[in-house]
Amino acid sequence: MKTKGQDNRQHIIDAANMLFYRQGFNQTSFSEIADQAHIPRGNFYYYFKSKDDILAAVIEDRIQRMRAMLAEWDTQFPNPKDKLHRFLDMLLNSEADLVRYGCPIGSLAVELSKTQQDMQSKAKDMFDVFVDWLIPQFEALGHKTEARMMALRLLAKGQGVSVISNAYSDANFLRAEIAELNNWIEQL
Amino acid sequence: MKTKGQDNRQHIIDAANMLFYRQGFNQTSFSEIADQAHIPRGNFYYYFKSKDDILAAVIEDRIQRMRAMLAEWDTQFPNPKDKLHRFLDMLLNSEADLVRYGCPIGSLAVELSKTQQDMQSKAKDMFDVFVDWLIPQFEALGHKTEARMMALRLLAKGQGVSVISNAYSDANFLRAEIAELNNWIEQL
Repeated sequence: MKTKGQDNRQHIIDAANMLFYRQGFNQTSFSEIADQAHIPRGNFYYYFKSKDDILAAVIEDRIQRMRAMLAEWDTQFPNPKDKLHRFLDMLLNSEADLVRYGCPIGSLAVELSKTQQDMQSKAKDMFDVFVDWLIPQFEALGHKTEARMMALRLLAKGQGVSVISNAYSDANFLRAEIAELNNWIEQL
Repeated sequence: MKTKGQDNRQHIIDAANMLFYRQGFNQTSFSEIADQAHIPRGNFYYYFKSKDDILAAVIEDRIQRMRAMLAEWDTQFPNPKDKLHRFLDMLLNSEADLVRYGCPIGSLAVELSKTQQDMQSKAKDMFDVFVDWLIPQFEALGHKTEARMMALRLLAKGQGVSVISNAYSDANFLRAEIAELNNWIEQL
């Protein structure tokens, strides 16, 4: 059973996660997170001493959620192509957010590279969760030596489509490019 | 001949351009720009009343530089494939900056989409300079109906490669992907 303290900590993480995504890490203040999480500011420091601590917890939380999601897909879809299609469905399911705010992982990674280079490797850890899961799918499809390159290329494709769909507020571009990628997977 | 006032204005634009790229728009203060431009803060407001004014001038300045660069390529390279190769060389020439800070256009566009949605269309104007120049190249290569889609796709590819090269601090990925794109252009 979760204690109240664990609940509060999770509320802070959820609020920070949403605000970092929608406003950016640097544009989000301690007090905005406290307000959003409905935690009195006086209690806040009991859970997190600094915004960097919250960022580390947000990234750790995202990584756990991503791993849980991928483990679920592994159970649901034994076939590697179906897994890759499911991966692309994730982008379509997040269409509105991607077009409005960009990719939560990519936009955070680029922001941190500019101002928090010491935290950038944590953002990379999020991409690595996908890379480590994508590699065995491409290997299973017979692309042993190229598997890592193909995983990075698929992530890059998703990132590029996010940036351009976001800049042009154009969900159709996102859908067209995901359709192309689904065709590409079928031909692997 | 340029007046001192025009020089000062340009110094402010150049300083802001560099800082917006390396730190992000929101993380850059008026006084940092003034210090970087070596303009006394008291004089600063004579040139720009707000950071949004500076941002508009930075984007306008970038657009003018991009147009001048593309016009020069048009003169140097009559062949559309050579123009497209030159476009990709631009990414290789900026390799160190792309890996360190991401793409100046893409990272600004995503940042503004989160917090300055009213300014986002200006960031899109930068992409449009490239789109408007890329379309006639793909048309000249016989891709009349798909030309705009191909232009957006090429930009998306550049964006995706920038985000991933930046996240992994990996110039080799950038080079490998640009090499692939050069091959793709040859086959058009």
